[in-house]
Amino acid sequence: MKYRLKIHVSLKLGHSDPEGETTARLLRELGYKVENVSVGKVYRVLLEADTTKEAERKAEEMCKRLLANPTKDDYAIVVEETK
Amino acid sequence: MKYRLKIHVSLKLGHSDPEGETTARLLRELGYKVENVSVGKVYRVLLEADTTKEAERKAEEMCKRLLANPTKDDYAIVVEETK
Repeated sequence: MKYRLKIHVSLKLGHSDPEGETTARLLRELGYKVENVSVGKVYRVLLEADTTKEAERKAEEMCKRLLANPTKDDYAIVVEETK
Repeated sequence: MKYRLKIHVSLKLGHSDPEGETTARLLRELGYKVENVSVGKVYRVLLEADTTKEAERKAEEMCKRLLANPTKDDYAIVVEETK
């Protein structure tokens, strides 16, 4: 069975986010009243697995092994069955 | 008033996504049955604006002027009032 994983990886609070800071500065230079910007990533993965539980377990593993850095990143996982 | 913008920028369908392809390959090398990976960005912006409508209009403008490339990117905007 195929599952669609949506994995959102973002910096933990308090970690410096140079891309977010640069984006905030550029938006301010364009005239927007921006207080703060943070930048995260979204991975959309099409994965073969037997059950939703297995897909969730594998998504969690993928984050720990490759997609997120446990020292500095938070991640959130959404698993959907495909039709 | 302050608004929280969540702006999701992803490549339009059919555009080559080298980061997604590399991630898919690495996940396969780790043993996951991955068919496809695409990678997008999420900007979380704290913006000062007078109304929700104005915040939405500004978010749309920011995408066109800075955050997305109209030739190759799709974007989606969610605006929330902050409490």
